[in-house]
Amino acid sequence: MAKEKSNLETMRHSLSHVLAMAVLDMFPEGKLAIGPAIDNGFYYDFDLPRTLIPEDLPILEKKMKHIVKQNLKFERQDVPVDEALKISKKAKQPYKTELVEDLKKAGKKTVSFYKTGSFVDLCEGPHVESTNKLGAFTLSHTAGAYWKGDEKNKMLQRIYAYAFETQKELDEFLKNQEELKKRDHRKIGKDMDLFCFSALVGAGLPLFTPKGVIIIEELKKHVEKLCSDYGFQKISTPALANIKLFEISGHKQKFGDELFHVTSKHKQKIVLRPVTCPHMGQVYASRPRSYRDLPIRYMESDKMFRAEKPGEVGGLNRVYAITVEDGHTFCRVDQVKEEVKGLVKIIKEFYTSLGMFDEFWVSLSFRDPKTPEKYIGDTKDWETCEKMLKEVSKEMGLNAKVCEGEAALYGPKIDFQFKAISGKEFAIPTVQLDFSTPKSFGLVYTDEKGKDVHPVMVHRAILGSYERFFVLLLEHFAGDFPLWLAPVQVKVIPVSDKFEKFAKTIEAELKAANIRVEFDESDESVGKKIRNAEMQKIPYMLVLGEKEVKSKKLAVRSRKYGDLGQIDIKKLIEKLKKEIGDKK
Amino acid sequence: MAKEKSNLETMRHSLSHVLAMAVLDMFPEGKLAIGPAIDNGFYYDFDLPRTLIPEDLPILEKKMKHIVKQNLKFERQDVPVDEALKISKKAKQPYKTELVEDLKKAGKKTVSFYKTGSFVDLCEGPHVESTNKLGAFTLSHTAGAYWKGDEKNKMLQRIYAYAFETQKELDEFLKNQEELKKRDHRKIGKDMDLFCFSALVGAGLPLFTPKGVIIIEELKKHVEKLCSDYGFQKISTPALANIKLFEISGHKQKFGDELFHVTSKHKQKIVLRPVTCPHMGQVYASRPRSYRDLPIRYMESDKMFRAEKPGEVGGLNRVYAITVEDGHTFCRVDQVKEEVKGLVKIIKEFYTSLGMFDEFWVSLSFRDPKTPEKYIGDTKDWETCEKMLKEVSKEMGLNAKVCEGEAALYGPKIDFQFKAISGKEFAIPTVQLDFSTPKSFGLVYTDEKGKDVHPVMVHRAILGSYERFFVLLLEHFAGDFPLWLAPVQVKVIPVSDKFEKFAKTIEAELKAANIRVEFDESDESVGKKIRNAEMQKIPYMLVLGEKEVKSKKLAVRSRKYGDLGQIDIKKLIEKLKKEIGDKK
Repeated sequence: MAKEKSNLETMRHSLSHVLAMAVLDMFPEGKLAIGPAIDNGFYYDFDLPRTLIPEDLPILEKKMKHIVKQNLKFERQDVPVDEALKISKKAKQPYKTELVEDLKKAGKKTVSFYKTGSFVDLCEGPHVESTNKLGAFTLSHTAGAYWKGDEKNKMLQRIYAYAFETQKELDEFLKNQEELKKRDHRKIGKDMDLFCFSALVGAGLPLFTPKGVIIIEELKKHVEKLCSDYGFQKISTPALANIKLFEISGHKQKFGDELFHVTSKHKQKIVLRPVTCPHMGQVYASRPRSYRDLPIRYMESDKMFRAEKPGEVGGLNRVYAITVEDGHTFCRVDQVKEEVKGLVKIIKEFYTSLGMFDEFWVSLSFRDPKTPEKYIGDTKDWETCEKMLKEVSKEMGLNAKVCEGEAALYGPKIDFQFKAISGKEFAIPTVQLDFSTPKSFGLVYTDEKGKDVHPVMVHRAILGSYERFFVLLLEHFAGDFPLWLAPVQVKVIPVSDKFEKFAKTIEAELKAANIRVEFDESDESVGKKIRNAEMQKIPYMLVLGEKEVKSKKLAVRSRKYGDLGQIDIKKLIEKLKKEIGDKK
Repeated sequence: MAKEKSNLETMRHSLSHVLAMAVLDMFPEGKLAIGPAIDNGFYYDFDLPRTLIPEDLPILEKKMKHIVKQNLKFERQDVPVDEALKISKKAKQPYKTELVEDLKKAGKKTVSFYKTGSFVDLCEGPHVESTNKLGAFTLSHTAGAYWKGDEKNKMLQRIYAYAFETQKELDEFLKNQEELKKRDHRKIGKDMDLFCFSALVGAGLPLFTPKGVIIIEELKKHVEKLCSDYGFQKISTPALANIKLFEISGHKQKFGDELFHVTSKHKQKIVLRPVTCPHMGQVYASRPRSYRDLPIRYMESDKMFRAEKPGEVGGLNRVYAITVEDGHTFCRVDQVKEEVKGLVKIIKEFYTSLGMFDEFWVSLSFRDPKTPEKYIGDTKDWETCEKMLKEVSKEMGLNAKVCEGEAALYGPKIDFQFKAISGKEFAIPTVQLDFSTPKSFGLVYTDEKGKDVHPVMVHRAILGSYERFFVLLLEHFAGDFPLWLAPVQVKVIPVSDKFEKFAKTIEAELKAANIRVEFDESDESVGKKIRNAEMQKIPYMLVLGEKEVKSKKLAVRSRKYGDLGQIDIKKLIEKLKKEIGDKK
């Protein structure tokens, strides 16, 4: 069944016909494959007598604009399938012929063609009325693509295009693309030497280099300090477990093919964990717990794994080994409100410190009130907790929306929906109540009356996984990190060898004060050294020469605040320490 | 070929015959299996008409002493194998008969028996002359053991005994055993709530609870500070890799069945890494390197894995997932001496700070000079480096011994051999040169002349794996940790509810000063609270009552230094901070 298509989609797809017309005008012997609408535009696959070169695209674009101007109609013709076969064969379009054969095999009696001027294309439609209804477009690039996506088939040439309803929208999109390119985490990561990949280690398995690790460790220190001040205790659990653990938790069934199995000659039934919650539950279970002990809060930054499709891993966005900053609270129902409030405060403080707590809304994902029976846990507990979540979001002034029917089967939750500076939306932070896991694992505490009661398990994500958050961070700051996150905080550049000794003492003083300082030892000119430091987006630069040695004061250049004039080393250290402490 | 046996071994084995005589005296229908000497004593396996009970052991011991007193001779008789078969069958000793049959199959023409009094046992010998040459012994315990160690065979009863040349040695050994039991890491770990196991997660996969993680993090902070001050940079690499990586490094071949393979529907050829060196090499390889960049030093505390036999994992000593504190230096040959010196200094400082740098010697493992051709790398480099290692050990006054032929194929090394307080020897710290890995992976740097040269890779272990070092640490301190390592540093105990408020302000002040403090909120009596804190081996205790509230001074009890009298909170914090900083 054809999906209903939006105007924009219809327009984009119609434009792909216009592209095909332009291509046939340029290559009359060209063979057409398919040309669907996609996000932000469309593409069309062709089998052409020669490989396209970038210079072909403006020519084709011009031809397309010429066709559009003629205000041609898109006319549908429904034809019996056998006649369609004849038409396609006659037109010497083998790919179209194959598609009609496929439709015939699938039992189709009639198929549709669309006619635009003298151009006829096998097509399900719909299309715009005529070419004057087409918006703004531009051809972006070409790529190889196998016929029907199967690598056993012939490699065709795909032309990609962007298309929007208005020129203004297209321009904005293109500008944004430029900005995104600058903020591409792969590019920044390489330029700033933050992480790398190795063909021998394999795709989906990033290696963080020293400067990347500094960023990760600073993030970790920050989030762990917030959590530990609130009462979270660090634990350390193995990334492996007997598969039994995940049979009980339900994750074996949930993740299915995404589970990595660990095998050896000894036939243990081990898997790499797809989540960390069941391990945390086992630490809770290792001792008897009393109502006085609650809440108990555990956190851990360690690995979980997903057997992604090899074709789908790439960059830091999708990896096999995910370093997750995870945490769970075990508490009583009467403690849920305070606990959620505490966790929301941590989320608020963390994102505020990164300047990301501006544009967001919060979804309160509750049960579908029509089907309370399909949810796990006591109805009264659900009601109490949903009420508590509402109160928290009201008391904390969150921009909240109740989403009925959006709760997980095991409990209601609060999801934060952010808009990143890059324009991308993200929904990392979350607080989720869970009535089910403690039941499945028989986790209990002894209440005031000596009775065994299941605690509520509260899942929370603050930054989520370090890999994905790293992407967000690189896009957010485009490499221009605040001082506390910058892998190198100060670059020391002596203007000549003569001042190296002095520069070294300055370097040593900064190091002793735990400032991350780098000394440029290369043979480059001072100008080149300064440019390199700028390229590396290092927040502070000290260019040291005669004047500095004599005055014992330093010429400080701040990337953010410009030239700061002559500063005494003690003062500079004080200033830097304050900026680091303030996370500004 | 029979190994040459020590006197002690001969004596222990002779005692096993005496045990067999005693057992046959008690159970005339008993069947004898084998009775070898082992570390610290001997055992003998029997097939008996009833299961032995602990009360049998003193009876058997008395019988043995009686036999010893008779001063019986051990007389050897060599008999043709067929006659031996007849003798064993006639004696109705089926296990001995089977052993003679095995010897016959193996082509033996004659076998030997040993006669002691009326007792005759098939035995290769040697034995002591007579029973007055036997030292001190005691029967320790019994256990089940399959005939020939094969679980398809019958389960026999094994009697274990300790035996030494003198009563004094035996007494010392038994005392030491008692001490070791107190220092058993499993017991301390449970009593102090440092780690746990979960049947659902599985054996060989320990979970560290909050207090255990504190110790691990303190250790990590300590060792990483020493290394980072020296120039090590932290990297973070995945615990997985394509198997290719380990084919090139040779670890696939080396670890064979001990490799864990990671499988999914997507058929990636991934393994869990058995070592971390190849990953570190790939970070080195991610950028071009110049001779000026060297030495480059990477460190990482993360997981590696070994598919141990399920029966052999246990406690923290042998686990599937090993957290290794690993580090590698890439340097030029001319930098090797300074580098080794720097690494040895780190080792010295680390072990000194734990009070473990007392009894040790160092083995300089060099090539076998007779077969220089079997080693990888340039002969001149080997000579230079062996000379450098010798110089380092001389200049640093290490108690060194050159061990020719003990080098790895890829390079010479320095191994530290320590004697732990528990009496156990351990050999964790090591510095190893490696000429081979950089070659296998094509790792290079550009030298002064623009030529590509392989760096030397220096492997170093300081504390090795956190799991095994944890065991060593628990045995070393028997839970009585120095202040900087103690999971709880101060326990606050108000003598009644009336003083809880005051106690809470004290707790808060200590917390704010980053002192790890615990407040006893239980309903127990003050006496019980104090005893609990003592059981938990908490270094400082503050018992707070009327007097303390009035004087605003605290009654401080130190586990190590006893009663410290009344101290002001500010002074106490100062004192604790100094003790923590000094790592005393």
